[in-house]
Amino acid sequence: MAGVTHSFEMKTVETTQGLIQLRKDLPSPVGLVPTMGYLHQGHLSLVQQARNECTSVIVTIFVNPTQFGPQEDLRSYPRDIPRDLRLLEECGADLVWTPRVEELYPAEFQTWVDVEKVTQPLEGAMRPGHFRGVTTIVAKLFNAVQPDKAYFGQKDAQQTIVIRRMVMDLNYPIEVVVCPTVRENDGLAMSSRNVYLTPRERASAVVLFKALTAAEEAYNDGVHDADELRAIMSKKIESEPAASLDYVSCADPETLNELSGSVKRSLLSMAVRFGDTRLIDNILIGD
Amino acid sequence: MAGVTHSFEMKTVETTQGLIQLRKDLPSPVGLVPTMGYLHQGHLSLVQQARNECTSVIVTIFVNPTQFGPQEDLRSYPRDIPRDLRLLEECGADLVWTPRVEELYPAEFQTWVDVEKVTQPLEGAMRPGHFRGVTTIVAKLFNAVQPDKAYFGQKDAQQTIVIRRMVMDLNYPIEVVVCPTVRENDGLAMSSRNVYLTPRERASAVVLFKALTAAEEAYNDGVHDADELRAIMSKKIESEPAASLDYVSCADPETLNELSGSVKRSLLSMAVRFGDTRLIDNILIGD
Repeated sequence: MAGVTHSFEMKTVETTQGLIQLRKDLPSPVGLVPTMGYLHQGHLSLVQQARNECTSVIVTIFVNPTQFGPQEDLRSYPRDIPRDLRLLEECGADLVWTPRVEELYPAEFQTWVDVEKVTQPLEGAMRPGHFRGVTTIVAKLFNAVQPDKAYFGQKDAQQTIVIRRMVMDLNYPIEVVVCPTVRENDGLAMSSRNVYLTPRERASAVVLFKALTAAEEAYNDGVHDADELRAIMSKKIESEPAASLDYVSCADPETLNELSGSVKRSLLSMAVRFGDTRLIDNILIGD
Repeated sequence: MAGVTHSFEMKTVETTQGLIQLRKDLPSPVGLVPTMGYLHQGHLSLVQQARNECTSVIVTIFVNPTQFGPQEDLRSYPRDIPRDLRLLEECGADLVWTPRVEELYPAEFQTWVDVEKVTQPLEGAMRPGHFRGVTTIVAKLFNAVQPDKAYFGQKDAQQTIVIRRMVMDLNYPIEVVVCPTVRENDGLAMSSRNVYLTPRERASAVVLFKALTAAEEAYNDGVHDADELRAIMSKKIESEPAASLDYVSCADPETLNELSGSVKRSLLSMAVRFGDTRLIDNILIGD
């Protein structure tokens, strides 16, 4: 019944002015779930957690062009707004903002938000300009929506660290909530980009999760050396012929500095290519 | 009597958390007047306009280190917080935020807001990094305070253009209000830096206003050529032995592109040094 009730109440809006007007009528606390659409269970778990913790839930669907590199998949990025809206109704979102590129990035647009250090390694090193696009669009969404809480997935681990840093440095009175990665039955982390995989690549793609869990098990068995943990992950990925390794990392979960010697709490992460499709995954180990 | 009433109500706060708490109890619309303190009639005219237009008025006093260059006057910048607070009480401010440098810029601070094009000419060309410091601190103040309106003086003309651009590009639901330059009896634009001037320099400093009004009069008499207007201003400044010209400009008031040929609406502006003291001034002409 709750789902039915919400399905009659969910509003959608395209313009920023319309969003700002509708936001004024939403009771606090307001939770924001920023997405690029083509929603999967990972996104929906964010909406559900926001629904549990907030009086009002706003979801944005926007394929943000400034976080894609010139050689990346902006044009082919999967989109299905009608399906997304049905799923969001079922999850009880109150308001869905689907802004247009031309409104968020008019011709005279010239302002960027830059986080300097934690954007340098890992995804930042492989995807120049990516995080500048992410922090700029998230700042824009934060400013227009003025949420009390904002929800992001652990799957994009570096993104959560970058956004937490931006929120602290720019004094946003917003709580960043990071929700666990949602996985397919075989362990593959859910991602809108999984749709690109051929059946054969899809079967191979479980190797990311296998590599991460192999390193986690080794850690729990007493293997605490950062080089050894990275080697365990690399070897596993290299054992899969369809997989091409971008990087493996064992890093400090706050600074993202690569660790050496015996490690305690650390972020294990990796990026792996299957044909033209690039997947990332991570787990936190230690305590 | 209104002044007396307000004098009992004005609150001051130092921490960001304290500011955010107190802000929640202030009725909307909230007006923000960001200052670096050592207040003069120019600042107070902003507070008075905010008082007239808003239910609540928040003033910040913060000498922002990131907008000063390494060779600039950060350490000697004049400060007098007790006097500032008395003046703000008399103007009816509701809340004064005096944050500490260590809290707004902790050691791990690494996030910057950059406006690209309109920061390049004029003050941006003479003071590298200045506007990055300005936009970053203003974004921080906007985020913490969440005002409905923010007040800036026309005296810092390029700053008002840069901040308007940032507000548009980053989707701040904030109205930027620009108030007229307040001048001394002889025409010198009020500035906290006027206190640096020796009596002799102070007498010479009126030449900025004289140069601007000479160009304005020429424009009203039919001299519409940008080069001629710049030459009128340069010649006037060069006629004053104590003055050393940094630049004169006749620019488009939105893009700040230097104009040529016959001009309509334009921003006449200049920077002039007297000893170690650097003064700026401007007027808008045409329509």
